[in-house]
Amino acid sequence: MRHKSFGDMHCAVARSLERVGEWWSILILRDAFQGLTRFSQFQESLEIAPNMLTRRLNALVAAGLLERHRYSRRPPRDEYLLTERGRDFRPVLWALVDWGNKHFSPDGHTIDIVETETGRIAEPMLIDRHSGHALQAPEFRTVAGPAANDRVRARHGVFAAPQNGAKS
Amino acid sequence: MRHKSFGDMHCAVARSLERVGEWWSILILRDAFQGLTRFSQFQESLEIAPNMLTRRLNALVAAGLLERHRYSRRPPRDEYLLTERGRDFRPVLWALVDWGNKHFSPDGHTIDIVETETGRIAEPMLIDRHSGHALQAPEFRTVAGPAANDRVRARHGVFAAPQNGAKS
Repeated sequence: MRHKSFGDMHCAVARSLERVGEWWSILILRDAFQGLTRFSQFQESLEIAPNMLTRRLNALVAAGLLERHRYSRRPPRDEYLLTERGRDFRPVLWALVDWGNKHFSPDGHTIDIVETETGRIAEPMLIDRHSGHALQAPEFRTVAGPAANDRVRARHGVFAAPQNGAKS
Repeated sequence: MRHKSFGDMHCAVARSLERVGEWWSILILRDAFQGLTRFSQFQESLEIAPNMLTRRLNALVAAGLLERHRYSRRPPRDEYLLTERGRDFRPVLWALVDWGNKHFSPDGHTIDIVETETGRIAEPMLIDRHSGHALQAPEFRTVAGPAANDRVRARHGVFAAPQNGAKS
């Protein structure tokens, strides 16, 4: 079976997936959002093999989602902090929490998103910032963007073209 | 390296990841949202090995995200349709599109989410349905839910407990 780099695929979803690499990476990001920063903390939380954790942390640093910060010279110790790019992943993660709560929590929620001040449980909802409308089908749809190649255009149908303008 | 089932992990994120299994599954869902239903369509779009595609489609059916529907008796041909659980994955996917567009599209967007009627490009934003507030930190945070175990509680800190009530 051929391994294909999703990064070569001409689509924002595929490129994003390439950057978060695999499930461990998302779970590391989950923990980073919960304030974990140190190797030992991630290891304790995830029960992941050290060499695997090292590899995933390095990949997240290389992809620009985490940055390494030396907090101790002797002994040398690094911590891992979310970058802006990493923090911008939060809506994906919280949408995933919501989906998991809705469909895979037969015994009740294990995580909730709450309003910090009131503790009131939030109900995540994706909207269009401009119109304020719920971002759902069929009111909204995906179309090929201006930088799309033929493959992406074919998948979305020709309907997309006039709405976005062709580049050439 | 030990393979661990994320499904055993006591967290909505981990359980969700278990269900969508791996990147190919998300790309299949992406295509399903764009109206693809047939094996040959997925194969053409993804350039994925047939045995791998079969395995991923079966897994998505087993996880309840797609349902198989026989559209031809002779020759026997199935199509794959999104279930409600599968359709509910859309916010995760669209949040991923938005993140990819923001951070990994140096040459411009290859996909855009648009308002169907007007063609106007949408800007996805996660809000709390109750308050209408942007679902962002530090105004919102995750806490251990009522069904959380000790591990999840430890990760979130004791702060979570009084807001959700203990079960026992």
